[in-house]
Amino acid sequence: MQAYLQRAQNIVERINELAAISEDEKGITRTFGTKAFIQGRDKVEWWMQQAGLDIRIDSIGNVRGRFACSQPDAKTFVIASHIDTVANAGKWDGPLGVIIGLDLVEQLSQTKTVVPFHIELIAFSDEEGVRFHTTYLGSKVVAGSFDTSLLEKKDAAGITLRKAIEEMGGDIGQMQKDAISPAEVLGYFEIHIEQGPVLYENHIPAAIVTAIAGQRRIEVIFRGMAGHAGTVPMEMRNDALCSAAEFILETEKYAVANKENMVATVGKLNISNAASNVIPGEVICSLDVRSADETTLSTASRHLQALCNQICIKRNIEFEWKTIQQTAPVTCDKALIQLLSQSIKQENYDVLSLVSGAGHDAVPISAIAPVAMMFVRCFKGISHNPLENVELKDIEATVKISDNFIKNLIKKYNQ
Amino acid sequence: MQAYLQRAQNIVERINELAAISEDEKGITRTFGTKAFIQGRDKVEWWMQQAGLDIRIDSIGNVRGRFACSQPDAKTFVIASHIDTVANAGKWDGPLGVIIGLDLVEQLSQTKTVVPFHIELIAFSDEEGVRFHTTYLGSKVVAGSFDTSLLEKKDAAGITLRKAIEEMGGDIGQMQKDAISPAEVLGYFEIHIEQGPVLYENHIPAAIVTAIAGQRRIEVIFRGMAGHAGTVPMEMRNDALCSAAEFILETEKYAVANKENMVATVGKLNISNAASNVIPGEVICSLDVRSADETTLSTASRHLQALCNQICIKRNIEFEWKTIQQTAPVTCDKALIQLLSQSIKQENYDVLSLVSGAGHDAVPISAIAPVAMMFVRCFKGISHNPLENVELKDIEATVKISDNFIKNLIKKYNQ
Repeated sequence: MQAYLQRAQNIVERINELAAISEDEKGITRTFGTKAFIQGRDKVEWWMQQAGLDIRIDSIGNVRGRFACSQPDAKTFVIASHIDTVANAGKWDGPLGVIIGLDLVEQLSQTKTVVPFHIELIAFSDEEGVRFHTTYLGSKVVAGSFDTSLLEKKDAAGITLRKAIEEMGGDIGQMQKDAISPAEVLGYFEIHIEQGPVLYENHIPAAIVTAIAGQRRIEVIFRGMAGHAGTVPMEMRNDALCSAAEFILETEKYAVANKENMVATVGKLNISNAASNVIPGEVICSLDVRSADETTLSTASRHLQALCNQICIKRNIEFEWKTIQQTAPVTCDKALIQLLSQSIKQENYDVLSLVSGAGHDAVPISAIAPVAMMFVRCFKGISHNPLENVELKDIEATVKISDNFIKNLIKKYNQ
Repeated sequence: MQAYLQRAQNIVERINELAAISEDEKGITRTFGTKAFIQGRDKVEWWMQQAGLDIRIDSIGNVRGRFACSQPDAKTFVIASHIDTVANAGKWDGPLGVIIGLDLVEQLSQTKTVVPFHIELIAFSDEEGVRFHTTYLGSKVVAGSFDTSLLEKKDAAGITLRKAIEEMGGDIGQMQKDAISPAEVLGYFEIHIEQGPVLYENHIPAAIVTAIAGQRRIEVIFRGMAGHAGTVPMEMRNDALCSAAEFILETEKYAVANKENMVATVGKLNISNAASNVIPGEVICSLDVRSADETTLSTASRHLQALCNQICIKRNIEFEWKTIQQTAPVTCDKALIQLLSQSIKQENYDVLSLVSGAGHDAVPISAIAPVAMMFVRCFKGISHNPLENVELKDIEATVKISDNFIKNLIKKYNQ
């Protein structure tokens, strides 16, 4: 058992080494293609090489390390996460999955384990999308769904994505060849911090992800009549903010009533020409609805729109309902979930299943492969923040479970 | 009767002439001490001179025109309003009261009316306080309540109020002498557009102001816990915006229940670090409560704070309640109201009494004199906006009523 603790300590050391590489001196920031990013990537590449993997950097800058099966035409099982970060990030979001994956494959390599499939460990170059306001650049190339029109997108300094890729030495012409075809991939496994409080509140080190929630991003505009806060009597008002407030509470009420299946959030609210002595005439607010179930998403969206309509009719307010973004839910693979569940039980941990409310690289990959994800408890569910933390004992637990998972997977394919 | 229509047309012409003088070419902006302001003031001074008044510009730049009584030790009745504007203003807010006042005194002068008191017509130089973020600079000097510490306040260009006054030729040393003592003042009359919709909705040209509402300006800060909109289940949230929304609706409910005596408005709401995918952790909102009655103000403020407390206890949210500003209500003089009411009845108009929700120069003046105000109907209650409008027939009605008022006042003091 001591070996697992050592492995966990080794993982924390690597996480810390990577966290020391940042665009700025204070905090951790390694966005796609920057010097710090490349320095961090080189370190991961070096570690993979040391672990005995067959390494290459693909066109979008993903580090891809292969632990090969003796049969060249065997399928590939992918273990991955990302190594880019948000600005002023924590050190665990992304790197944890890559570094634990590295440890797992390193073990196979050191123990000269014979595997019935190739294992590809991937450190995705861009999941957060901070620099180019994109998402999943790295995993979309692997999934073959990279949208080449994005190449002309510019970062804050006016540098195009194309230029950034070329400056990293990426060959855009190679992009299609970097995709893994559904025919050759066996499955995908991603370890990630939960970024939510459920494990923390339930005192459990890790959980199975059953699905990644789909999302509706909606903008609601309430239009009433601005007026002087002193001179318009209460009965002559058309206060857009009061309507928005009622909508916020009705949204909350509906989401609480359906909390097993969804969450809903109003995160942004802007009052046009706001002033303390002006009755709000126009309010624009965001609505974010997430669910693992597509029907729940569309029902909730329809229901909330109808509630909004009722509120606005009652209050003589106009409203506009704009769907900004729709993302379909991703269901994790039942067979892989079954193996993960078995792997958790082998360590006598409670089996907790969660829906991921946040998006992950598993989303684009789900188009080409059965996907599985495991969440690791993080301090109070805090992420995208220097306070992000994972305890050593939880890393140890995660390594044990993952080790079981890989062994169970090998066993399954050896049968 | 034709004469009244001609007087109203003459008033509109002067309003238009003044409106043509602005800091910028589009719209009307004449803030305290600017070139446009001085040009506008010079015009008003010229008109007053032409009307046969004894003119002077005081230390703060007010134009003061005196129509003297034959007895030098008689008391003074003040007719006034302001000639500064907000940025991108309408043409009526302020000038209407000055130009109608000018017309009234002009009539007395032309008809060589013998008056039992001096009449002083004042065009206040600063009521809006746009340039130095102050209020009532002009009328406070007249009331002897000018706060000299304001002299060091700077405008956006870094020019102090002291410098601005000196550049206008104002002698700060004279300021105290420019104040009118309570012993020498008989009363104060101000005509102003309503800046609210009550006259417009009730189809009445003018109304008596019985009081100017007092105000409580409060800032409420709600502190919950920020979180990821996708990963924190509904039952684990401490959403600061939902608490604010509940507070907004409870405030509205309370104000509607007490609508005869008060108004309450949440006009500003800021979510700290707002993003559509983040549960709001901190919300800061403004609360503006107005009433003609001091007890109503303090009861409302206490009650709303208690409601806020209940909401926050229930939701496990912290809140802070900061009183930013308190203004006491001003009650208009009963005897002057009685005279105004009589003057309205003489023209067979409905007598409507209103509380002014907005502040006016009558507020500082009320410390030294019995005050009366008359509101004139404006289009849809719109003000501080180029759409601000007053119809000719309403000016005619206002002139008739005001003429009666002055005649009734003269009669009263001649008895």
